Amino acid sequence: MSGWLAIAGLGPGAPELVTPEVTQALAQATDLIGYAPYVARVSERVGLSRHVSDNREERDRARLALRLAAEGRRVIVVSSGDPGVFAMAAAVFEAVDCGDPSWRNLDIKVLPGISAMFAAAARIGAPLGHDFCAINLSDNLKPWELIERRLRLAAQAGFVIALYNPLSKARPWQLGRALALLRKELPEVVPVAFASAVSDAKEAIDVTTLRDAVAERADMRTLVLIGSSQTRLIARPDGSPFVYTPRSAGVSP
Amino acid sequence: MSGWLAIAGLGPGAPELVTPEVTQALAQATDLIGYAPYVARVSERVGLSRHVSDNREERDRARLALRLAAEGRRVIVVSSGDPGVFAMAAAVFEAVDCGDPSWRNLDIKVLPGISAMFAAAARIGAPLGHDFCAINLSDNLKPWELIERRLRLAAQAGFVIALYNPLSKARPWQLGRALALLRKELPEVVPVAFASAVSDAKEAIDVTTLRDAVAERADMRTLVLIGSSQTRLIARPDGSPFVYTPRSAGVSP
Repeated sequence: MSGWLAIAGLGPGAPELVTPEVTQALAQATDLIGYAPYVARVSERVGLSRHVSDNREERDRARLALRLAAEGRRVIVVSSGDPGVFAMAAAVFEAVDCGDPSWRNLDIKVLPGISAMFAAAARIGAPLGHDFCAINLSDNLKPWELIERRLRLAAQAGFVIALYNPLSKARPWQLGRALALLRKELPEVVPVAFASAVSDAKEAIDVTTLRDAVAERADMRTLVLIGSSQTRLIARPDGSPFVYTPRSAGVSP
Repeated sequence: MSGWLAIAGLGPGAPELVTPEVTQALAQATDLIGYAPYVARVSERVGLSRHVSDNREERDRARLALRLAAEGRRVIVVSSGDPGVFAMAAAVFEAVDCGDPSWRNLDIKVLPGISAMFAAAARIGAPLGHDFCAINLSDNLKPWELIERRLRLAAQAGFVIALYNPLSKARPWQLGRALALLRKELPEVVPVAFASAVSDAKEAIDVTTLRDAVAERADMRTLVLIGSSQTRLIARPDGSPFVYTPRSAGVSP
């Protein structure tokens, strides 16, 4: 039987947000590869070898997956959320681009998942109802100046902004700097949402304003959504507010 | 039994891309509401009333859904892709914001889906592997000048750009104008993908360059992805190329 490689998204956490396509691929795979907490989300079964690795080792993980598929194994690499969004898909294609030329003919598929951004948005309403962007706030792989430039242009464009990887122990100051920059570009009343561990037992979602947003609220499992000047709150007597961005944002920021 | 309203994403087309969460909600609903082609994707069953409407009637559809939920019905509004992305979720919250104050206390949930953008990206590789944005090219609800401004700023920011609603009979020239504008901002060799009807029987995906992209290739079911200056092709002797954007885009456009 010839090998294949599937790069699959497990969604934000809840099993009911894993697509049947991914469930089927997991059932057929011989080898499961990923960052330990994501591999732990997949049930063990006979015939499925598990290869766990640390967070920073995307490159080695991608090369292992490609080598195993080339040997005829049925390999699934798992990411949280969608694998194409700041996750393993790009790492695998980088490895293909720079690696053994025969890897280009492997059967490689990307299986989309529910991204953190859309799962978080769904929990609070429809904050991404108008044009939006996603920025990885990690400066491990790009210069901080480029991130600042993108934040500024995104705010000037009137995009709602989803910030991935906002804060970690190794990157403690980046989100604070980003919020300070955005306060110069956007009204201070713009809604900001911190959405952590969406759809699993530790889920915590806080809606505040750009003025009151505190960077330290975030951690590695938090997605931060910054509204545009058009984003609105709907107060609810019996619960937390709905947040949405109208489809018709006629006013330039 | 008290009513509820779920605004659900059916994903791009294939049943195996519908989340179990959405499948469960469809099984419990009493009323199914949506644009006719999306309602047609849900199997008929006894006890589920179907309310179909035309594409342009989002506002009436949202108000009908809210009225029925307020009457104690279990209502599901379906969108293609993700309901929070240029789809029904924002329309419903607009209706809540402007409608009967009692609607604010309804049990309203958004159930995320696999968006057209991520489904299309998955089919060709990892074009969204770096920072990206999504722009609705329809000028029905925002001035064309704002769309041009956003395209220009997005290109200057180095975002990969996903264009929703690129072309329709009522909006025949917008995508051509957008491509002409982007040719002034980006290298002409930037990869461009036209992804139509992803994951269903009529799926058609073409990868070209910004120089050679022809607007008329698109229709209402097409998502257009515009690469950044960093987006790369991996040629494959045996098939269409992989398209990806490396995680480390150190160079400002």
